[in-house]
Amino acid sequence: MEKPTNIQDLVRRIREGNRRSLAQALSLIESTHPADVSDSELLLSTLYQEADRHTTRRIAISGAPGVGKSTLLESYGLELTNRGLRVAILTVDPTSVRTGGSILADKVRMSKLASNDHAFIRPSASKLALGGVTHTMQNSILLCEAAGYDVVIVETVGVGQSEFTAAEMVDCFVLLLLPTAGDELQGIKRGIMEVSDVVVVTKADIDTKAASRAVSTYASAARYMRQTRPDWHTCVVPVAATMPNGLLEFDEVIEKYFEPSRQAQISSERIRQRVWWFDQTIQTMLGAKISSSEKLAHAIRQATDTVLQGQVHPMLAAKAIVERISISF
Amino acid sequence: MEKPTNIQDLVRRIREGNRRSLAQALSLIESTHPADVSDSELLLSTLYQEADRHTTRRIAISGAPGVGKSTLLESYGLELTNRGLRVAILTVDPTSVRTGGSILADKVRMSKLASNDHAFIRPSASKLALGGVTHTMQNSILLCEAAGYDVVIVETVGVGQSEFTAAEMVDCFVLLLLPTAGDELQGIKRGIMEVSDVVVVTKADIDTKAASRAVSTYASAARYMRQTRPDWHTCVVPVAATMPNGLLEFDEVIEKYFEPSRQAQISSERIRQRVWWFDQTIQTMLGAKISSSEKLAHAIRQATDTVLQGQVHPMLAAKAIVERISISF
Repeated sequence: MEKPTNIQDLVRRIREGNRRSLAQALSLIESTHPADVSDSELLLSTLYQEADRHTTRRIAISGAPGVGKSTLLESYGLELTNRGLRVAILTVDPTSVRTGGSILADKVRMSKLASNDHAFIRPSASKLALGGVTHTMQNSILLCEAAGYDVVIVETVGVGQSEFTAAEMVDCFVLLLLPTAGDELQGIKRGIMEVSDVVVVTKADIDTKAASRAVSTYASAARYMRQTRPDWHTCVVPVAATMPNGLLEFDEVIEKYFEPSRQAQISSERIRQRVWWFDQTIQTMLGAKISSSEKLAHAIRQATDTVLQGQVHPMLAAKAIVERISISF
Repeated sequence: MEKPTNIQDLVRRIREGNRRSLAQALSLIESTHPADVSDSELLLSTLYQEADRHTTRRIAISGAPGVGKSTLLESYGLELTNRGLRVAILTVDPTSVRTGGSILADKVRMSKLASNDHAFIRPSASKLALGGVTHTMQNSILLCEAAGYDVVIVETVGVGQSEFTAAEMVDCFVLLLLPTAGDELQGIKRGIMEVSDVVVVTKADIDTKAASRAVSTYASAARYMRQTRPDWHTCVVPVAATMPNGLLEFDEVIEKYFEPSRQAQISSERIRQRVWWFDQTIQTMLGAKISSSEKLAHAIRQATDTVLQGQVHPMLAAKAIVERISISF
């Protein structure tokens, strides 16, 4: 990638809202080149404190292909920009990732929003950068916030384990579902409804009755699930993205979610997420360190085999290994 | 505790089905006394291979106080002993734990079963023994299997995080719920339905209609949850424990769960659980090792504080610590 004169220049231009510099910074944090990694760390530590602002909104929009994510994103994004807000959309559609991040496809999908000065649309990279896809997405959110975006929306496809991690990155996780009569989730990872703050039944303009039936079915199922936040229980709303006021209920529930009385709660969830992120990184990196010790990794593999075969008591096998590890700091 | 002449003697007597020796062994593995720990490890490693038999059934019965656990356990336990099976029931009711494990209370609760020669009822200890409560329970199951019990039932109260761990110890997790019209779970930890292989609506003898309404409501909610096993989806059945044939549907679903065609699946789940147990122990013990390094524990506490306060990027704070750790083996 083209290098900025220095990171401080890049930081300044990001703060000024320079879109090209933001794009450049997003590429930098996705890079796995050793020289880029140290630049990336400098950039992130410089921007970190101001980036993690509590006044921004971090929203994930998840749903299977064809459920109507683009339509909702475009309508809702335009609504937000009309209110004078700046909106960044980070897409993680694996199909566009496969082709190296298809900006063109995103511009076609959300043509009006893509040409709006207050909106920034960016497909994510598939490469494993510093800390993996998870951290890259987290860091992308931070960069967008440093660049002054008020709302950052992460678009995901809801089919894998990564959705559960995505829920740990945002303030509000939104799941889109079709109003099908079928009583199974449509191609969506089971359990994902449990982490959804808001469930949206799409295409209510096509069949109002089916949509309202689906809303009540999903709402009833949600009652047996955990609360997603200490003061929030999954809400289910219909959306008719092509109709005037078709987003009204969705908009209302999002405003309710982010209303001033919930700010303290949202801040405390962000603090919890920061510590979660810290713990995850320590565990992942410690795991990598253990694997890099040839002897230790070999011993663990061997012990796992004896455990798999039922030859040795799992707890005693683990104890035998950990007793031989010594940690210095 | 009274010591056996030696562990090999104890092993022999457990294998012979000596109830007093089994009780003695269960106390031994609950003990935190250093001398007992090494005896306990010798006992477990001697018995481990034969204990982890695939022909046994491990069932957890979970539910809030008053839901009807004792009634179901007594009826079902007697039904199994009538079939010539030996049944061990390990209770983990925290209220009985608080009073040091109330054997008397259990005998009153399940009076007929308690006096049956083919049944063994044992309240668990609250003390943290080798590997904590989780491992103690796991080891208790193994000891009962080594003593020849065909069915081991773990009774839990369904209110805490430990229920999710309990689900990792058994082949089949059963949740008992009241047929109340209320649409919230009754005093039960949210999310616990998601790990339940079987949901039982109790007291169907009192109000058949309410029970069948509850069955259909819970079954509908279960459809939006993850499958509990690759080839199994939560089943919901009513139980009328005081009626003739009142356990019929429950008995049928348990038989279906353990039918010969599912044995390979159950075995592979046990292997997964063994590896899970091994991984958990390594993580817990490694964590303890890290905490025991004064300098490292201090550095992590300090870094956590800076992360909590939003001063330092969580990923970079974690990286800075892990880079200073060196592991030798």
